[in-house]
Amino acid sequence: MQEFSVWAPDAKKVTLEVEGTRVAMEQAQHGWWLASVESAGHGTNYGFLLNDDEKIYPDPRSGWQPDGVHGLSRVYDPAQFKWTADDFKAPPLSDAIIYELHIGTFTPEGTFDAAIGKLDYLRDLGVTHVEIMPVNSFEGTRGWGYDGVTLYAPHQAYGGPEALQRLVDALHAHGLAAMVDVVYNHFGPAGNYAPQFGPYMDPKHSTPWSSAINLEDAGSTGVRRFLIDNSLHWLRDYHFDGLRLDAVHSLVDRSALHFLEQLRESVDKLSAETGRPYTLVAESDANDPRLVTPIDGSGLGMDAQWSDDFHHALFALLTGERGGYYADFGSLKQLAKALTCVFVYDGQFSEYRGRVQGRPVVGLRADKFLGYIQNHDQIGNRAFGGRIGQVAGLRKAKMAAAIVLTAPFVPMLFEGEEFAASTPFQYFTDFTDEELRKAVSEGRRQEHAPPGVDWQDVPDPEDPQTMERSKLRWDELKEPEHAEMLAWYRALIKLRRERGELRDTELSHIYVSCDEEQRWLRMVRGLTTVLVNFGKDAQSLEMLGPKRVVLASDSAVELTDNAVRVPGESVAILVAE
Amino acid sequence: MQEFSVWAPDAKKVTLEVEGTRVAMEQAQHGWWLASVESAGHGTNYGFLLNDDEKIYPDPRSGWQPDGVHGLSRVYDPAQFKWTADDFKAPPLSDAIIYELHIGTFTPEGTFDAAIGKLDYLRDLGVTHVEIMPVNSFEGTRGWGYDGVTLYAPHQAYGGPEALQRLVDALHAHGLAAMVDVVYNHFGPAGNYAPQFGPYMDPKHSTPWSSAINLEDAGSTGVRRFLIDNSLHWLRDYHFDGLRLDAVHSLVDRSALHFLEQLRESVDKLSAETGRPYTLVAESDANDPRLVTPIDGSGLGMDAQWSDDFHHALFALLTGERGGYYADFGSLKQLAKALTCVFVYDGQFSEYRGRVQGRPVVGLRADKFLGYIQNHDQIGNRAFGGRIGQVAGLRKAKMAAAIVLTAPFVPMLFEGEEFAASTPFQYFTDFTDEELRKAVSEGRRQEHAPPGVDWQDVPDPEDPQTMERSKLRWDELKEPEHAEMLAWYRALIKLRRERGELRDTELSHIYVSCDEEQRWLRMVRGLTTVLVNFGKDAQSLEMLGPKRVVLASDSAVELTDNAVRVPGESVAILVAE
Repeated sequence: MQEFSVWAPDAKKVTLEVEGTRVAMEQAQHGWWLASVESAGHGTNYGFLLNDDEKIYPDPRSGWQPDGVHGLSRVYDPAQFKWTADDFKAPPLSDAIIYELHIGTFTPEGTFDAAIGKLDYLRDLGVTHVEIMPVNSFEGTRGWGYDGVTLYAPHQAYGGPEALQRLVDALHAHGLAAMVDVVYNHFGPAGNYAPQFGPYMDPKHSTPWSSAINLEDAGSTGVRRFLIDNSLHWLRDYHFDGLRLDAVHSLVDRSALHFLEQLRESVDKLSAETGRPYTLVAESDANDPRLVTPIDGSGLGMDAQWSDDFHHALFALLTGERGGYYADFGSLKQLAKALTCVFVYDGQFSEYRGRVQGRPVVGLRADKFLGYIQNHDQIGNRAFGGRIGQVAGLRKAKMAAAIVLTAPFVPMLFEGEEFAASTPFQYFTDFTDEELRKAVSEGRRQEHAPPGVDWQDVPDPEDPQTMERSKLRWDELKEPEHAEMLAWYRALIKLRRERGELRDTELSHIYVSCDEEQRWLRMVRGLTTVLVNFGKDAQSLEMLGPKRVVLASDSAVELTDNAVRVPGESVAILVAE
Repeated sequence: MQEFSVWAPDAKKVTLEVEGTRVAMEQAQHGWWLASVESAGHGTNYGFLLNDDEKIYPDPRSGWQPDGVHGLSRVYDPAQFKWTADDFKAPPLSDAIIYELHIGTFTPEGTFDAAIGKLDYLRDLGVTHVEIMPVNSFEGTRGWGYDGVTLYAPHQAYGGPEALQRLVDALHAHGLAAMVDVVYNHFGPAGNYAPQFGPYMDPKHSTPWSSAINLEDAGSTGVRRFLIDNSLHWLRDYHFDGLRLDAVHSLVDRSALHFLEQLRESVDKLSAETGRPYTLVAESDANDPRLVTPIDGSGLGMDAQWSDDFHHALFALLTGERGGYYADFGSLKQLAKALTCVFVYDGQFSEYRGRVQGRPVVGLRADKFLGYIQNHDQIGNRAFGGRIGQVAGLRKAKMAAAIVLTAPFVPMLFEGEEFAASTPFQYFTDFTDEELRKAVSEGRRQEHAPPGVDWQDVPDPEDPQTMERSKLRWDELKEPEHAEMLAWYRALIKLRRERGELRDTELSHIYVSCDEEQRWLRMVRGLTTVLVNFGKDAQSLEMLGPKRVVLASDSAVELTDNAVRVPGESVAILVAE
């Protein structure tokens, strides 16, 4: 016996099509339609017909789309999976090191099951959390996942629902926490049938991708339920330990109860039921500390947010790039401010944005913010998907790694970063409609072509090779320069895990000084001091008390009586004797 | 010598036209253009030309538009006015009774100066604050003022800038505080030249009236400055004691520093300079207590907001109307909830809105909310602009008055309410463009025609008679039924001013009980008890301790041993012996 239900508040009639037969659904309260079918259950194919329309639509809440987003839905019973590592408990963010990965490019096979084969490696690397880019179903096979339309169904090209459960279970068995990226600010441009069922969209507001999702107007109560239930679905049925919420600055919600606060409350309720803690991390461009302020402090209650200002300050300094949003960055002082105050723009005028941006972080700990030198956007939104090592060279990539992994924020790495993967992470899609393919293929390339580069020389998102060349090449680990970088990351991660002061998240405990002319920066974190020489030439930096060098990105680092001679473009990490 | 300045961040060239001569303006920082003209000063006509366009535009910050919104601007020096009552200090909202008026209909002449002639009357009535509907310039002569385009220039048909200064000065001389209604959520549809000068609009978001004003995107720093300076202009140059902010739920601002918070901070800064307190009251449809929570409690820092739920609960109960937003109201319990909890919808599903609405008011005092049975919208958005007395009869109008004036909220009256004016307050406009006239004339009538009424029978906004018939007829005060209502309001206001418990704003001190079947409600406010019989027939209501009747809307009210016999559709106010 299977109960079917669907929210279609404006429909006059809803028909269930299940294994070739049609069942008239019964109208229930609040726009819901119900039917139960004796012969149906796990594995049954079905769809819905609306009013007198003969088209069979997939279920907006479908848990399985074996034939893609346009095909029939299939009943998936998550309870049939046998979990093996249920005693796992995720460590708190203050102890976390996050590893972001994209299932399709993390392994040659590009599947959930293939990813399982790399978990020994990730455990040995020393990361604590794996954050998986969106696993929701999107049109075609290839994509980053942010064009999701059937938000409850794990993408079939990755292996579908049971394979995802296997991966999460295996992560836990390896002592790794599992997080998944969810996208609630827009639907993808193809295969989005939800608006046929109800007022999912709010045409009064637009986002960079489409109309906003309806979070505040008539019908929004059901739409919010749809999204929050989606979160609960990943946490409860797939045992994820947390979510990464995409671009929450693009949500439009002026309700008295903000969507994110409602989500926090719902997730906490589930947590009280299951006894497991759940972590909510949001991507936000607003530099608004209210996002990560607890609800009882009148905040939105997210556990943490991505902190782009730290990235931009560090990246602009290392690469010298000043295009796009890097126009606002480039000074050592800004990196120092990011390390101590989190937001570089906390009430200043941003030339790039053409307006004042942000407000100061007050009374929040550093584990409310993720720090990184690479993530899918910062690599993949470059025309050629080049990584920091390709853009700035491996010497500087090592400097960046040391700063990220000794900074007060929760460090996050992007797949392959730890071995300076030579493979890019490019933007790839796989749409069906010819016009859409052309619009994406040309629009994307024209938007992202750097000055002086013909847009037609930029990799074509629709070309299957674009995804193919973005796949990690694990055999690179055998090559010395990659092995060396991996050893560097491992050593840094080990140091962070061993030295408690590096995990001290009280921002007032961090002392940073820098010299814009001399191009050095000193970060003191309790007994550990990080000395960074951004200049070309070696320079002697005051030691401030007896110390020993525990790690250095250049072996030519030298201790003298009261100083450390740090080679150009390198970093030395010292510990007080 | 006059300094001219204008913000035109995207212009390549700005030319000042001043008394027939043209002066090339100099580009300064942040999009500003400057010029000084030796021969110009108070009274000089001027305008701006943008790039190579030959059109002369009025100044978006013009302080005087003597020939209407399309004409030249004229320099107005507010400092040339001689203030006479500068020692006035506005009482706090906890002691306030607000009187909302519309300059064009408050007197036969419809001017600032004519309004001065009525201030003795208002002082004797006992109100403390006069809130003037928008005085900004809008196209034509007739209008409510919400279609403002030259937001700094007092409407010329009302008498222009100096006359407004005279009115505010006279209000203060009469011991009355002056508030003015400002509209920052949209510009009017005609004569809005600001977008020629800069990115005032945000086309990504729409409001019920137009695109949103740009509060969060590129250029918003200048737009926000424009609006905040407008507030400061009224408070500093016109000596207003406070502002009423129109429909703040229609602002779109996801910045880390919300526009309203920035406004609060700017106004407080001015207050520190001038030594005068300034009151910010917002109209909001969001039922979000954060709006009136202080900034240091993570709120938006408004002093108070209009509270429509109290109005709707009371109005639906008295009139039996259930159309439009009244669909959500009608029970005595809801009125009781409004009186004790402020918002009836504080997290419930609203059928009218098709979504969950609001959140609970916690830890805020009642003087954060205005209570009223009439205001310009609640009267003027009815097809025929009928007042409560016309809709429900004078008996019920008296009940309403008693509840509003003994409720914990800051009472607000609408012009003429206190004498049950027979004149309606209808919607009127005076646009020039034929298409716009037609659109407003037909659209408005079609939207607001009640069921069963031909929209063509609804008064035409563009017909001059529509405003004319909305003017108060002061000779009505000589007629007994109007004189009686005025006496009733005066007595209620006197009672509120005399009895401190009626001005106790601690919501937990209010006890309300009611009986939905028997149709009575009892509100206990310290020593004062208000008994309301909503039923048709007289009924005896328990007295709960010895009391005397101090006011009753029906003289047939009778005290017995332990009870009060309250006639049908009447109210009795008792005080403990």
